[in-house]
Amino acid sequence: MTTAKHDTSSPTPTESLLRKARSAFYSTSTLSAEVRNRALGEFAHLIEDHREFLLEENRKDLDAHRGRLAASLVDRLVLDQAKIRDLVRGIQDVRRSADPIGAVLARTRLDDGLILDKVAVPIGVIAIVFESRPDVIPQILSLALKSANVLVLKGGSEALHSNRAFMKLVEDLATAVPELPEAWAQMVDTREDFGELLRYPDYVDLVIPRGSNEMVRKIMDSTKIPVLGHAEGVCHQYVHSGADLGRAVALAVDSKAQYPAVCNAMETLLVDSEVASEFLPRFLPEALERGIRIRGCPKTREILPGVEAATEEDWAEEYGDLRLAVRIVDSLEGAVDHINRYGSHHTDGIVTEDARAREEFLEGVDSATVISNASTRFADGYRFGLGAEVGISTLKIHARGPVGLEGLTIYKYVLRGEGNIVADYVGENAKPFSHEKLET
Amino acid sequence: MTTAKHDTSSPTPTESLLRKARSAFYSTSTLSAEVRNRALGEFAHLIEDHREFLLEENRKDLDAHRGRLAASLVDRLVLDQAKIRDLVRGIQDVRRSADPIGAVLARTRLDDGLILDKVAVPIGVIAIVFESRPDVIPQILSLALKSANVLVLKGGSEALHSNRAFMKLVEDLATAVPELPEAWAQMVDTREDFGELLRYPDYVDLVIPRGSNEMVRKIMDSTKIPVLGHAEGVCHQYVHSGADLGRAVALAVDSKAQYPAVCNAMETLLVDSEVASEFLPRFLPEALERGIRIRGCPKTREILPGVEAATEEDWAEEYGDLRLAVRIVDSLEGAVDHINRYGSHHTDGIVTEDARAREEFLEGVDSATVISNASTRFADGYRFGLGAEVGISTLKIHARGPVGLEGLTIYKYVLRGEGNIVADYVGENAKPFSHEKLET
Repeated sequence: MTTAKHDTSSPTPTESLLRKARSAFYSTSTLSAEVRNRALGEFAHLIEDHREFLLEENRKDLDAHRGRLAASLVDRLVLDQAKIRDLVRGIQDVRRSADPIGAVLARTRLDDGLILDKVAVPIGVIAIVFESRPDVIPQILSLALKSANVLVLKGGSEALHSNRAFMKLVEDLATAVPELPEAWAQMVDTREDFGELLRYPDYVDLVIPRGSNEMVRKIMDSTKIPVLGHAEGVCHQYVHSGADLGRAVALAVDSKAQYPAVCNAMETLLVDSEVASEFLPRFLPEALERGIRIRGCPKTREILPGVEAATEEDWAEEYGDLRLAVRIVDSLEGAVDHINRYGSHHTDGIVTEDARAREEFLEGVDSATVISNASTRFADGYRFGLGAEVGISTLKIHARGPVGLEGLTIYKYVLRGEGNIVADYVGENAKPFSHEKLET
Repeated sequence: MTTAKHDTSSPTPTESLLRKARSAFYSTSTLSAEVRNRALGEFAHLIEDHREFLLEENRKDLDAHRGRLAASLVDRLVLDQAKIRDLVRGIQDVRRSADPIGAVLARTRLDDGLILDKVAVPIGVIAIVFESRPDVIPQILSLALKSANVLVLKGGSEALHSNRAFMKLVEDLATAVPELPEAWAQMVDTREDFGELLRYPDYVDLVIPRGSNEMVRKIMDSTKIPVLGHAEGVCHQYVHSGADLGRAVALAVDSKAQYPAVCNAMETLLVDSEVASEFLPRFLPEALERGIRIRGCPKTREILPGVEAATEEDWAEEYGDLRLAVRIVDSLEGAVDHINRYGSHHTDGIVTEDARAREEFLEGVDSATVISNASTRFADGYRFGLGAEVGISTLKIHARGPVGLEGLTIYKYVLRGEGNIVADYVGENAKPFSHEKLET
């Protein structure tokens, strides 16, 4: 933190808000698990007690945009009794989960009376930006509270009333749990304010964007703060020459069509040239039945003359719908190269009964999640058993793939001595270090 | 990776080099431990066999700069038989250390026949920039090779001949170990080329700068690629009211004077007002004897009238020499606030016999390393038992404090199924997940 900068007079409103957040972190990070869990319980009660208020405010958002939003966006925007029930249940699940903070991850005796601990701690000030879905707020709030982090939130303008209603409950929560600093969760309203926030790496430790590829890409391109998330989800399945072709058909259909709009759906199907002429004619009718629209490479179109031609651009595109690029490759190596080159390092699979080919693929593909003989759609925090999911990350450091509570923590080193000075451990007659690993 | 961008014609030389690095990573990341360790052994032999060549090239650097570099810089620039012996020993230590790659960190049965592994893998393409010390190259090369990462290096221009000599051995290594792709380690020569490299987050996964604060700060301010390192090292000791004052004097002297030029040396000493009038007169003669030059706050100067006055700027300055800022604070909370506000979140200590105060400080100070009753100078990868050190990080994600080999790794999720599709696990009659933790 370059402090001189912090001390210039007349900070902007965003800078003031961030200073408050930073200061709140120092209180939040030392809250006991008891207080944090009590706050989570209170938060769940507040939502239950104010469900009518929440629904009413949400209705204002819906009324304001009725007819102007696509049906899928209205689906995401709407709150109802069922969603609120799920929310409350989710918060109680987080409350009951194991404490992610304070665990001693490793303990080393450096010398007699000099013990080094590596301790799990919260990260700090985390900025989250999300679109449309107002139910993201209580989810994220509960994860931050559990992990003793401080939040700055920016929601979509479509959900303005709903978001403010939840933030009103956050205010009430600080009253109900006086140990909680008021600024542990704050909201910025405008895109401009969030844009300004992205320019303060000294105040914000991590940015987590949840929303469209365009939004995530824009944030990644405009900040020096680490961004946990992913822009594109260009996922693949590769049907190897050793595949069980019946399985391959089922896996290709599920990976593409089970929910085509999400990031872990397959966009490109790679087929080994050895099995293409048998596999593709079996796949085609199933694909057509599920509405899948194939764009094929020239060799694919020799086998399936009816399908549209794919261009170079198709290999890198996240369709997000039932379009599917199909390419015939000559070898496992060709498949791995294609995926590493055109993919988004998100989730990629192989279908094969050949154990050696399977392991070569799993090792060679540089993606957050690699899969054999299962649908790409499994790459998800809930399905992976991580509990609540912060998001899916294609960052190459810190946390990769589906990220749970653990992704909101880091460690610090805690060294406890008995007056030890370094001068005793250097030069002639230097005391040796024992570096003995201890049980934690 | 936005592939379209990669495919535009006529890349710059730096972009070509980075494409080669990315492509080399896909080969390097799948090298077996046997090959990587064999390469480390060969590398050590090559250095031993070419020590005269290395010393000769180093002499060219020394001759070119003789009389124009400060003695301390010449010390860092010079290679001699002893340094080369240490280098070779260091590489052999890395070779013998446990393999950081491939370990299964966690294993979960999601359902029958659907097993999820979390596996340690290399990060990717790592760019390292360092000043003066040519012996950094073989250290970094050995750590990267052990962890199956690919390197792009930029050394200081003072060490140009020495650096090129080491890179010549890297070429020879690729001949001796044909499994190693030639581009696993490349060097860029100019500051401009490195500046360009910092603009390619799609090709470079991590930047590690080792050098002056100015250099590190400049890199942090000019790239979106995550930077593992630290700019300032503004470290503190706080003499609490419950301190053993004899210990406090010894710890303050060691923290400041044992090696004042390094990042984990103390820059500001905080003294509790309850003990200041007893502690400071005991500390002063010891400090003077070691050449420590105190700059005090007004209250300090009431007790030690002879010392210089500190200004607001002193609290945030890394002197890197025997100057020491001293401030009297009214409470433990005041000390923690001062450190969190003015410090650099690097290494900070408390001296106290009071266990409760100790724990409150260790929890409340948001620094990579927090210490009680020991010198700040212990914050170091070797002293912490991490083996070779990549650097000390004040990043709030991924790796914090002294970073060893583990900091050059990340994980990926590997899911092995038997034809499992997501459609079976959703909706009515959804199969449940078992999420059973398995032994690894």
